[in-house]
Amino acid sequence: MLIAVDASGGDYAPHEIVKGAAKAAYEYDAPVALLGRKGTLEKLVRRYEKKANLSIINARQTISSSEHPVQALKSKPNSAIVIGMGMLREEKASAFVSAGSTGAVLAAAFTMLGRIPTIHRPALATVIAVNPEKPFVLIDAGANADCLPAYLAQFAQMGSVFAAEHLGIPEPRVALLNNGTEELKGNRLARESHQLLNNMPGVNFTGNIEPQEILNSVADVVVTDGFTGNIVLKTLEGFGESFGKELGWQQSHQIPRELQGSALVNYARVMFLTRRADYKEFGGACLLGLDGNVVVAHGRSKAKAIKGAIHLAVRASELDVVNSIKANIR
Amino acid sequence: MLIAVDASGGDYAPHEIVKGAAKAAYEYDAPVALLGRKGTLEKLVRRYEKKANLSIINARQTISSSEHPVQALKSKPNSAIVIGMGMLREEKASAFVSAGSTGAVLAAAFTMLGRIPTIHRPALATVIAVNPEKPFVLIDAGANADCLPAYLAQFAQMGSVFAAEHLGIPEPRVALLNNGTEELKGNRLARESHQLLNNMPGVNFTGNIEPQEILNSVADVVVTDGFTGNIVLKTLEGFGESFGKELGWQQSHQIPRELQGSALVNYARVMFLTRRADYKEFGGACLLGLDGNVVVAHGRSKAKAIKGAIHLAVRASELDVVNSIKANIR
Repeated sequence: MLIAVDASGGDYAPHEIVKGAAKAAYEYDAPVALLGRKGTLEKLVRRYEKKANLSIINARQTISSSEHPVQALKSKPNSAIVIGMGMLREEKASAFVSAGSTGAVLAAAFTMLGRIPTIHRPALATVIAVNPEKPFVLIDAGANADCLPAYLAQFAQMGSVFAAEHLGIPEPRVALLNNGTEELKGNRLARESHQLLNNMPGVNFTGNIEPQEILNSVADVVVTDGFTGNIVLKTLEGFGESFGKELGWQQSHQIPRELQGSALVNYARVMFLTRRADYKEFGGACLLGLDGNVVVAHGRSKAKAIKGAIHLAVRASELDVVNSIKANIR
Repeated sequence: MLIAVDASGGDYAPHEIVKGAAKAAYEYDAPVALLGRKGTLEKLVRRYEKKANLSIINARQTISSSEHPVQALKSKPNSAIVIGMGMLREEKASAFVSAGSTGAVLAAAFTMLGRIPTIHRPALATVIAVNPEKPFVLIDAGANADCLPAYLAQFAQMGSVFAAEHLGIPEPRVALLNNGTEELKGNRLARESHQLLNNMPGVNFTGNIEPQEILNSVADVVVTDGFTGNIVLKTLEGFGESFGKELGWQQSHQIPRELQGSALVNYARVMFLTRRADYKEFGGACLLGLDGNVVVAHGRSKAKAIKGAIHLAVRASELDVVNSIKANIR
């Protein structure tokens, strides 16, 4: 197992990426290959390596989020995204992690890895653990802005496989994100998807779920189109950020000492929940439906989030989610 | 001015509706007509009236949220929704407020009041004041699940008129809710709407806004389709509820005395923000684009939210939002 990590993508690259990768490689005992400018990475690795199993692969070109994804991939064959996806295709790496341009990562994944033949559209699955005792999978979290009902029905299947393996839930309860619980509620996509989900093999469909219920452990898998899923994810993120700013405490260690009395346990819990809602703080999303493990991290990921994203990549490799999807969705 | 209030709709009718109406009638010095079962209302009004200007109009039929809206309206001419909308049409009331079946209220409004001729689709506008110093208008908050780009462009116009009048902002900054700031981001509806908004008269369009920014006072009007808008509203609601439950304090007066020290001002602010995110706590949404003032309140509205919804109705009547829309959108 080797996890290839894009060390040149994201707002805090390469410093925070290397820092997070070093921690992950050490903690999860996983070899990590850092893809980026060799000279810069060598200096950083010396600072962080300790006992971690880190290697460096030179990728001298950088793709920014403002570039057109497909054009950028063509013109930059020596970028971390192209090299990393190539390693995955040639089975030189078991997973690829990037906090770079999501559009470019998706485009590279689609063109270089290809879909599992039975899958209509790959989708981003992310675990939302605002309440850590009640995590759930959101799919699609942002890969497909425009969807057909058949896509959503299959997202439900992939999400079920992912939740069963990654969260260890035998028959995950699947719900369709909608603005009402009744079968006929929602926009046309939601109404038609609901009908398909009623009879989808391998899906324990429990009906519609309204967004105010998603944090209440009513469903293990929440299915929606990539536009709506991304909107929900970012609404939660905004709420987390807004609280953080309001409080002026961006980090838990900034909680003033006088607030650390026992009556304030609840306060700490609020802080904790708030920060967990802010998904750039804690991890990445798995791109399911492709012939390889790709993890997309938030562009503003710092070391902790990169570590989380690498953990997700390690898990996906160990659990062999790709083959589970191949075996379960025909 | 007379505000007609549906006293038989919503989870806490009629008790909380009458309580909220009595408070609103007194505080805003506005005559309120309560529509519901006369006998029951008379008893309740005696409890709450004090000096409030409350009257009662008998409406013996009740429409539930599980009924098909159009069929319910036909079969129940003596329901509060049909009677209230009739009062509005005949100018016997200046506004109608209901926490009952949103579907039935919308259907009654569309069929009995009719659209302003230049308006494609009426839309729900709500003021989100999670941060009370940075309120903004969300439109459409849930009236139109399926939209065309032309609808969204007009929601921007109506939202601008509403923000200018209701929030007192001369040239409201209008942004399109999207999952990326770049012009070409989003689903097809968002991309095409963006193009139209670039050249929309009466709209100070500032581009796309991502959901994590909506609480940061970057825009005064956030435009989206009714499905996405409702999803965002309910995601915020869920977050508010989740915090409330986690803390075990549903009401601000339940904050323990020992937590009221000066170091805890921040704590109170969190509670305050949390509760304001929960939109069932604070008010209603104005249905814009119709020939009359209709305010839709959350089905789980208690007295405080009903009072807020009536306040919105009073404001809409005083400001004559209907005629402003007629004058500004041609």
